[in-house]
Amino acid sequence: MTRDFSVAVLGATGAVGRSLIELLEKRNFPTRHLKLFASERSAGQTIHFRNAEITIQNIAEFYNETFDTSFLCLNNQLVREHRSRILANSNKVIDNSSAFRMEPETPLIIPEVNLDDLNKDHSYVAVPNCSAIIMLMAVAPLRTLGKIERVIISTYQSASGGGAAMMDELIEQSHAHLQGNSIKPRITPFPYAFNLFSHNTPINDLGYNGEEWKVIEESRKILKQPNLGINVTCVRVPILRCHSESITVEFADRRPSVEEIQAVLQSASGIRLVDDPKNNHFPMPSEASKQCDVFVGRIRHDLSHAQAISLFVCGDQLYKGAALNAIQIGESMIDLGYL
Amino acid sequence: MTRDFSVAVLGATGAVGRSLIELLEKRNFPTRHLKLFASERSAGQTIHFRNAEITIQNIAEFYNETFDTSFLCLNNQLVREHRSRILANSNKVIDNSSAFRMEPETPLIIPEVNLDDLNKDHSYVAVPNCSAIIMLMAVAPLRTLGKIERVIISTYQSASGGGAAMMDELIEQSHAHLQGNSIKPRITPFPYAFNLFSHNTPINDLGYNGEEWKVIEESRKILKQPNLGINVTCVRVPILRCHSESITVEFADRRPSVEEIQAVLQSASGIRLVDDPKNNHFPMPSEASKQCDVFVGRIRHDLSHAQAISLFVCGDQLYKGAALNAIQIGESMIDLGYL
Repeated sequence: MTRDFSVAVLGATGAVGRSLIELLEKRNFPTRHLKLFASERSAGQTIHFRNAEITIQNIAEFYNETFDTSFLCLNNQLVREHRSRILANSNKVIDNSSAFRMEPETPLIIPEVNLDDLNKDHSYVAVPNCSAIIMLMAVAPLRTLGKIERVIISTYQSASGGGAAMMDELIEQSHAHLQGNSIKPRITPFPYAFNLFSHNTPINDLGYNGEEWKVIEESRKILKQPNLGINVTCVRVPILRCHSESITVEFADRRPSVEEIQAVLQSASGIRLVDDPKNNHFPMPSEASKQCDVFVGRIRHDLSHAQAISLFVCGDQLYKGAALNAIQIGESMIDLGYL
Repeated sequence: MTRDFSVAVLGATGAVGRSLIELLEKRNFPTRHLKLFASERSAGQTIHFRNAEITIQNIAEFYNETFDTSFLCLNNQLVREHRSRILANSNKVIDNSSAFRMEPETPLIIPEVNLDDLNKDHSYVAVPNCSAIIMLMAVAPLRTLGKIERVIISTYQSASGGGAAMMDELIEQSHAHLQGNSIKPRITPFPYAFNLFSHNTPINDLGYNGEEWKVIEESRKILKQPNLGINVTCVRVPILRCHSESITVEFADRRPSVEEIQAVLQSASGIRLVDDPKNNHFPMPSEASKQCDVFVGRIRHDLSHAQAISLFVCGDQLYKGAALNAIQIGESMIDLGYL
């Protein structure tokens, strides 16, 4: 017997919200009814879902009903202010924001990596940072080959991480640049078309920006390695969706062969191996966009360290980096009988 | 008394050739007469230089004259075939190609780094790989702070490294993408607009592409550290000019403070420190384009290694990565009385 669930999406009109609705349909999530909520500004618009148009409701109306599952695609401030009220109206809340990720009692879940951290009593679950998810999808499975001591990451992050508005602005700026017009960035801190810039989150006293700090803290929590060494540099490149990452993994005791790594990743869930040196064909945003798998390739020994290997990953930031991971948490709750 | 020199540019119509002519004028290189050569296809075109239009000559005509200095902006094959003939007609040859860089008797020069490797008898000098130059401009000065053991690099390389044709194609593909038209790459191996791909040079048996191998071999030669550990991943991003690089440097014995590093780089020739965490302002292609300095910033301790630091660099690939470095070699020869 399969049950169907009442589902709410809060923040339905943003880039993650729209991807979530797209994927609820594509993956045939067992939805009895779906209600979509957003700010007053968006209320009244409609979004297509399963041969119907669903009208966006003002988020204030959310509290008039109760839901089996509520997916949050809201900013941190809204989640901080309203979490307890949202929980009062939802059996399970799956949150894409970073508001409570590092709370010790909050499970921070990548289903392929640490589903064990989820139990039936958890009513609030956080989706990790997109760069952390995409990196860990490739790195976590390698733990079967030996203890990981240090991970070195440089990211090539897309506009989608800054939301629909940043994606629109990259397109606008690119038009302007190609027409020889000057660019006046509105959302991006610097010109974005045909340019790159350090991730636009505040820098802490140690010189790390907010995105980098999330990758460090969240990865340690997810892997339960509080002392894991993580060197990370987060950079925005002029690409619409998909984050790519250049990654080096240092093992504590031995270096696995390239074949061992390929075999582990080949059989890892949610990974597509794209590793074709003959044709110089490796993970790329143009191919990973709107794909559920994280693409991994360029697997090779790091010639500068006896126990290190390097690889390159690319994953859709809106899908596995956010909406897909959230839905997979919901699917896992159903499979485990928690929902 | 200043002398003026007869100068030839072979391959004058390519991206590097044009930058070279631009910079010979900007830097007021002491040119008595400048002759420009290119393939038959380009012969007869003109290029502006110091209030005059110089007519491009067929490269075959080069051999009718002799020159004090010949700058080569030719492909490897042409240089391999014709070097000895070119040398017969030139007092000094400065070559941007990679044809003979690793020849033990060939000086491979970044003037700020290893001018000592150049002596008066050298008639043929090679300009290093662009990614190696831009990285070493920031890394080499740090040797005064301690022995460097390992360098870890991920690059964000622009279209200019693939020549004028690749720059044109990035613009064309971007137009097509924005207009919703399909992209059929001609020169780039994969779509380039709003995409990135692993550097398009053949992959060797160890899994490294040609560009990465150059960075490894040439950096070791330039620094005279044949065993220097270098981990490098070369990636092309959809940017027109300027290569950026995310770099981690591991020292052998101690970790310098951020202030020590800033002080060393502040006083290093050819470096501009752009390191403003408060405003999230760091090196970017939009600011480093057509600049002679290599921009360096994001200087911070690597929290995953007790003796490592990280930084981010950005330099104009056509300028310091090629044409400017070539001209600086010529200027150094003049200063040293070798020319």
